[in-house]
Amino acid sequence: MLRSKYQMLADSLSENIFKTRTQANPIMLVVLAYLLLIAIGTALLSLPQASTRPVSLIEAFFTSMSAVCVTGLSVVDISSTFTDIGHWFIVVLMQLGGLGIMTASTTLILLAGMHPGFSHQSVFFSEFTQEGNIDAGRILRAVIPFTFVLELIGGIVYFTQFESMEMYDRILCSVFQAVSSFCGVGFTLFPNSLEGFQYNPVMNITTCILVLAGGFGFLAVAELRYIFDFKHKEIRRVSLHTRIATYGTIIVIVASILVFTFTEWNNLFSGHTIGENAQSVLFMAFTSRTAGLNSLSIPDLTQASLFFFIIIMFIGANPGSCGGGIKITTAAVIGLLGVNRLLGREKTQVLGRTIPNNTVDKAIRIFVVAMVVIASATLILLCTEIPSGTAYSANSSPFLKILFEVVSAYATCGLSMGLTEELSTVGKIVICGVMFIGRMGPLFLISAVAGKLQDTAWYAEEDIMVG
Amino acid sequence: MLRSKYQMLADSLSENIFKTRTQANPIMLVVLAYLLLIAIGTALLSLPQASTRPVSLIEAFFTSMSAVCVTGLSVVDISSTFTDIGHWFIVVLMQLGGLGIMTASTTLILLAGMHPGFSHQSVFFSEFTQEGNIDAGRILRAVIPFTFVLELIGGIVYFTQFESMEMYDRILCSVFQAVSSFCGVGFTLFPNSLEGFQYNPVMNITTCILVLAGGFGFLAVAELRYIFDFKHKEIRRVSLHTRIATYGTIIVIVASILVFTFTEWNNLFSGHTIGENAQSVLFMAFTSRTAGLNSLSIPDLTQASLFFFIIIMFIGANPGSCGGGIKITTAAVIGLLGVNRLLGREKTQVLGRTIPNNTVDKAIRIFVVAMVVIASATLILLCTEIPSGTAYSANSSPFLKILFEVVSAYATCGLSMGLTEELSTVGKIVICGVMFIGRMGPLFLISAVAGKLQDTAWYAEEDIMVG
Ligand SMILES: [K+]
Ligand SMILES: [K+]
Repeated sequence: MLRSKYQMLADSLSENIFKTRTQANPIMLVVLAYLLLIAIGTALLSLPQASTRPVSLIEAFFTSMSAVCVTGLSVVDISSTFTDIGHWFIVVLMQLGGLGIMTASTTLILLAGMHPGFSHQSVFFSEFTQEGNIDAGRILRAVIPFTFVLELIGGIVYFTQFESMEMYDRILCSVFQAVSSFCGVGFTLFPNSLEGFQYNPVMNITTCILVLAGGFGFLAVAELRYIFDFKHKEIRRVSLHTRIATYGTIIVIVASILVFTFTEWNNLFSGHTIGENAQSVLFMAFTSRTAGLNSLSIPDLTQASLFFFIIIMFIGANPGSCGGGIKITTAAVIGLLGVNRLLGREKTQVLGRTIPNNTVDKAIRIFVVAMVVIASATLILLCTEIPSGTAYSANSSPFLKILFEVVSAYATCGLSMGLTEELSTVGKIVICGVMFIGRMGPLFLISAVAGKLQDTAWYAEEDIMVG
Repeated sequence: MLRSKYQMLADSLSENIFKTRTQANPIMLVVLAYLLLIAIGTALLSLPQASTRPVSLIEAFFTSMSAVCVTGLSVVDISSTFTDIGHWFIVVLMQLGGLGIMTASTTLILLAGMHPGFSHQSVFFSEFTQEGNIDAGRILRAVIPFTFVLELIGGIVYFTQFESMEMYDRILCSVFQAVSSFCGVGFTLFPNSLEGFQYNPVMNITTCILVLAGGFGFLAVAELRYIFDFKHKEIRRVSLHTRIATYGTIIVIVASILVFTFTEWNNLFSGHTIGENAQSVLFMAFTSRTAGLNSLSIPDLTQASLFFFIIIMFIGANPGSCGGGIKITTAAVIGLLGVNRLLGREKTQVLGRTIPNNTVDKAIRIFVVAMVVIASATLILLCTEIPSGTAYSANSSPFLKILFEVVSAYATCGLSMGLTEELSTVGKIVICGVMFIGRMGPLFLISAVAGKLQDTAWYAEEDIMVG
């Protein structure tokens, strides 16, 4: 009797501690973990053994930030600046950054209250819960094999293509490239991204598959295993999330193929075979869009292509993945909101389902915050990266270059028109800030706010005119 | 007895007709009226008496569209291309366009269900209602004196400044400029906008006041008369709308003054006196922002200034005015939504009041539609206005020029970096489309949708992941 009383006390105590822990805003833990990882990365890359020449603090910081946020922008030439040891450090940073963001975003999204839509999904979700609570550990244990299997296969294929290298370099390059592609970082150990493998179909296809898998979103991939119900011999209904993620990805890729074919037809595509151009356009639509790897020289694209890149970088990949941007599902929700309202519907419907208002709200918040951050950072860089007092008429065009860089950093894409290497110190710090906000911001917006709504009394309503 | 039965029948009949009329989507009437006015304007400006040389159909159409939508972009030199008769036609088109948009937007906003917040506002609103229904005729009858008095005073001041002209030209120029300034069109009868009056304080101050009055929003201006309650000798509480409109305008103007002073300090402001620079910066903050008149050469500004112009043109003026853009109150609602959500509040509160969710929703829709239209039009112009197959690296910078032009057209601002005169025929049509959508779109979004929500059964909710 006495013992059970103690037991109850202990239980209640541990429950309270546990509660306090989970209520200690999980997003803040993620932010702190990332800051710590970036700091450790900066320290490691600053070691004399890591680089072939002394790197400045800001160079090490920028590289660490870019690797951990899986952005892929770089102020130095990764290949020549860092030693093999440095390259292994970067592999680890990219891998931890990628695994971390997949696990953290999946966990935070589930924590923020995404519920299964069908009974078989409950089974599926139950893999990631412990007594009804979302368990980040279980999610991580499911993400790791998915990641390593794909990286292993990718690495082996890359290995077959790097025949001309020494064995040690060949292994390093294969591992580096597999991790960089799957995590959608976009670093390479070659001077001009993957331009050297421009028309190598094995390289192109492998990279496209790795990037697509890494950016498709872990939950959506995991659900595919549950489509076939072998017991009842029927195809199960897939969740709305996975359907929207799939259709959205297809729409973005098809639109990219059509637009790039049109805008580059008379430019970079002229004088090449259909097979070569098909590889180029697929590489841009699948890979450059979110991973930032490029097989064509970016400044040689037309301005229409570059502006379209800004749009699709901004949209990005699917949530719960290594990819960035506002996410394809976010853009889809905003588009669906527009379509439904124009049809006079009060709710946001698609594919026979209604999307909760709370989710629509989050999507819009993510969109607006992204616009505000990008506009502010662009304005700051227009002041820091152009000599003070230079009129537009006297200076040719860094505007597109700056806007491209800022969107690429925010969407953790990593494509650049060449501004990264030219950045001033202030510019480097601003881009680092944009990378970090772009990586953490959407997570913050889906999680932090949702939890702790005040239940104080509201002020009386009063309408104002808009539009 | 019998008579009263007939009376009732007649009443019910007239009520039904009236209902059918008001339900005949008022926004469609506004759109049709504007299309008709633009067509008549095109025909008038195509008359041989109206122009000094034969103008093409697209030139007449573009000028008519720009005048009626009070945008102020022009593919021809207004002053030399049209005769005095043509100039009077343009005055009428600008005046009807300006009066129309003020009346239509005020009516549609009130129809869409904006209700008075306080009892004294009921009195104020009652001026514009007929038996509880919003009466566009009453609003127009209140708008006209407000417009004409300000234009008359402005015209007289302009008249005193055009001393060197012949009497007839002097009257024409004064009337043209007064209407153009108050309606925020931005046409002038001078070759380089108002650059010839760069440091003429009377011209600058008059123009600033006219543009501010025309863009402040009729309801907000009208409410000022009700601030002082002479009977009870107290200052009445102003409506939330008018307070947000006022604070928002002040914030935008102060921010513009600070940013332009910073970005032009070493550029256009160097070598001028403080008084001259004060005039320049105030002119940009008050006038160029929404009316599109300029006293400094636009392409000589820095790129930071030009990008900031894109942002403040996009925000625009207050609703229920001649100004365009997404509107200051719309931007304020979106900003307040962000701030409130970051503070963990479920509702959007400000100044001791809660903004209804429906209004927040509209603001977001207006913002998203604007972004989509601007991005699409920019992409199209990047294809039509740059020779096909020109790589970015081979061509200096029309991107900023194109983006600037599209935002200026959408926001009916009318500033241009010089692209308007160079536009291809397709480009002219695209810009015409953007002007019209920018003028009608926000009205459509606040009115059409709000009225006729389906009350069918909704699909079951199913959540998806965003962010
Ligand atoms: K990347
Ligand atoms: K204008």
